[in-house]
Parts: sequence; C-alpha cells; structure tokens
Amino acid sequence: MTATELERLCVVLVNTRNPLNIGASARAMSNFGFSSLRMVNPYEAGFREARSAVGAATLLKNAEQYDSVAEAVADCTLVVATTAVRRRNLQHQVRRLEDGARLIRRRLKSSHVAILFGSEKSGLSNGDMSHADWLMRIPTSHQNISMNLGQAVAVCLYEIIRDPKAPRVAEKLAPAAAGEVERITTMLLEALRASGYVGRRRVADIDGRIRRLVRRLHLPARDTVLWLGILHQILWKLRTGGAPEDETKK
Amino acid sequence: MTATELERLCVVLVNTRNPLNIGASARAMSNFGFSSLRMVNPYEAGFREARSAVGAATLLKNAEQYDSVAEAVADCTLVVATTAVRRRNLQHQVRRLEDGARLIRRRLKSSHVAILFGSEKSGLSNGDMSHADWLMRIPTSHQNISMNLGQAVAVCLYEIIRDPKAPRVAEKLAPAAAGEVERITTMLLEALRASGYVGRRRVADIDGRIRRLVRRLHLPARDTVLWLGILHQILWKLRTGGAPEDETKK
Repeated sequence: MTATELERLCVVLVNTRNPLNIGASARAMSNFGFSSLRMVNPYEAGFREARSAVGAATLLKNAEQYDSVAEAVADCTLVVATTAVRRRNLQHQVRRLEDGARLIRRRLKSSHVAILFGSEKSGLSNGDMSHADWLMRIPTSHQNISMNLGQAVAVCLYEIIRDPKAPRVAEKLAPAAAGEVERITTMLLEALRASGYVGRRRVADIDGRIRRLVRRLHLPARDTVLWLGILHQILWKLRTGGAPEDETKK
Repeated sequence: MTATELERLCVVLVNTRNPLNIGASARAMSNFGFSSLRMVNPYEAGFREARSAVGAATLLKNAEQYDSVAEAVADCTLVVATTAVRRRNLQHQVRRLEDGARLIRRRLKSSHVAILFGSEKSGLSNGDMSHADWLMRIPTSHQNISMNLGQAVAVCLYEIIRDPKAPRVAEKLAPAAAGEVERITTMLLEALRASGYVGRRRVADIDGRIRRLVRRLHLPARDTVLWLGILHQILWKLRTGGAPEDETKK
C-alpha cells in the first residue's frame, strides 16, 4: 500500500473507555503504518491516560475528537462498522474480514475509508451502525466471538496490509553436491571402523547402508565443511588418544 | 480447519511476565478456536493473576508449564519462533507470516506444531530460537516493528485460520425492476409539480432528466415499497393540507 492509501484509512473508536485499549489500538495502527485515529465521545480520563502511553505517542497526540459518528466519517466515501455478530438484522450486509478488507483496500486507492469500532462493553449501537455501508466481522470461533478491542483493531489492520503475494522463501537450503556427501560418508565409515561400531556388528553391505543414511540427511551445501571438521576431529581422537575403555573391552 | 488441526497447534509463551499479556494471548487463542497453551518459565505471580482473568478461563486452567523450550516443543515436528527482526542472522530462515502460516497449516494436517513467542521486553533469546526450524515475522511497518504480545498472538492465529476462499458477499442487492423504478419516477414527478419545483423552473425534458436521476440511484428491489409509500404520503400532504407559505408566495 502507498503512504497516501495508508493515510486515507481512518480508525474510528466510538465511546471507548479503557485507556489500555485506546493505547493498544494506536500501537497496532503504528505497527501497520496507519496514522489517522478518530475518537467519538471518548471517556476523557481514559483518553488522557492513553495519550501518555508508550509507543504511538505522536499518533495519539494527533488523534481527532468528534461528538458524533456522522461528523467523524463525513469525508469518507466508505464507512465500515465492525461487529462480532454474524447476522444482526437484514438492514446491513455482513462481510467476513477477508472479503471486507479487499473492498477497503480498493476504495483506499481513491478516497477516505472509516472503520468503526465500538466500546469494549456493548460494541456499536444500531444508531452508530446506521452510518455504515456494511458490517465487517472477524471470523472468530462460535464458542467465543467477542474479541478484545486492541486485538480486533490489530487483526483488521493486518488483514488490510497483508500481502497475498508475499514472497515464499525457498523451501530448502541449497543441497550439498554428491562429492561432498561422499567425502562425509567416507569419513563417517572410517570413524565407525575406528570406534569398533562396524567391527563388532556384522552387517551386510555396511557401506551402502551408511551411504543411504547420510543421503537421507539432505545435507545443505553450507554445512558440509562443519560436518567434515567434526568427523575429522573425532577420527583423529579415535586413532590417537581415543577411548581406552573400548580398547580394553575388545 | 478441523478440530484436530486446531488442537495440534501449541502456542508457547517463553518467560512471559505481564498477566495482561498472558490473558490476552489466551483470549485470542479462544477467539480463533485454539486450545493448547504452553508456558515456559512464566513469572509465577503473573501467571496466577492471568488465570483469574475473564474469558478463556478453561484454556488458562489447562495451560501446561515447562522448564525449558526443549521440553515444551518435544512432541512437535515443526517449531516456529516469532521475531520482529527482519534478518537476525544467517542461522535461520525468516519467513513472513503470510508464507509461514501456509506451512504451519500444512503441517497441522499431520502433526503438532509449536509457535514460540518471547517475553515483552526482550523477545526470544538466540538459545530459544535455536530450537526453531525457522523464524516468522509479522509484516509490521519499518517505523514500529515491535508489537504488543497479545496482539502479535492474535494476528498470527488469525492468519492461520483465515480462509482465502471466504465467500464474497454479492456486491449489490437485487435491483428493482424497471416498472417499479418508473412508478417511483412518476410519483416523484407528480410531487415536483405539486410542490411547484417543476412549475417554477423551466427545464427542457424535465421528465427525461428526472427519470435518469432516479435510474442513477440503482434502487434495490426491497426498497421500492418504502419509497413509494414516502412519495405517496408527501404527495397526499402537498395536495391536501400542504405548505400554506408556499401558496402565499405564489
């Protein structure tokens, strides 16, 4: 999203009381690059306390206060009201966040969009919602549909900025070449012989089994030097000062 | 996601101190249908306080405590560590949440997955991270990358349960038939004549202009009865007891 598009989104908190929730909402806005916070009838003491909260201080300082939802959304061409309820009534369409955010992103290309969040206690009133073009709900579990305000703001804003084409990191690190794998196999076999592991047990085709074992590690190219060093050291110790107990057991 | 898949995801909070953040993390888990919370070295007082927090009480009661990350993730085949940092070092791949959640969902189909969240203050240590297969970061703004713990948990879990194929609500309500639109146009014209709006101003092709005006409203079928009732009442008032001041002005 462009800086202009980010600026066009207005988070409108209606009748919010808890300063922690105001602060958390502002912090989430700041985390996702948004800046326009509008407060409708905030509880004064709560708002003052939130302003002194850490993080997002500038954003809270610049927050605008309004006496009504109508005034807070006057310059927006799309007004969306958040709700936990799946089907409030037939007066409004309810869209899932995934669908709603898509339309919000589209509208932000050309004009201001408001997202209304209600108070912690009772959410948005029907009167508040009548200013909205449609309602948006976060796809919460049926068992617990009611989200904390700061978390709801964070999730909605994340969905708006998320990038469906985000790069997929390559699944695997670059694999080691067969020659390197074979060197490691050879050294491991030497270590197995030096330690007596191979000598004690009679296993058919031990070389082939160990080679396949090492192959299944799918060693990344960058790790081969480390493994060779480890095996080299172990082998040296086995051949020079290694394991007197094992020697006696033989 | 199936209930089994939801149960397989383990949220692992490492060295968390703030009871509000523990409670908020549990609430977000409950909102999105997850149940397995694991605590590594929680600050005892904070954990006790969080247990008494509203919402997600059962989830907190069932939370398991561990002394180390190793024990907390022992049954998981994929361990993911969250980080705010974009490129910690070359030891770990860092995936964006959108990409990481895709792999987590895939692995949940067959086995347990752990997502590690660090303490509010310092995040996860390099030691904690060494248990992870890769790191995951939420795509926050460069200006403010550090998220509140409860909000970070909410956003990560939302991305895991979000449905890219969520139904798109039909963009438009069923449109009114042309006959209904014409009835409304006719009544509006009658009201304009009765009120003197049309009589006073001399406008060419007033019928055509008003018809196009009404057409541009793209009236939904369900609203035609309401509009006809409104116009009918206005027309009745205009013709019987309407507007004595207007009459004198004439």
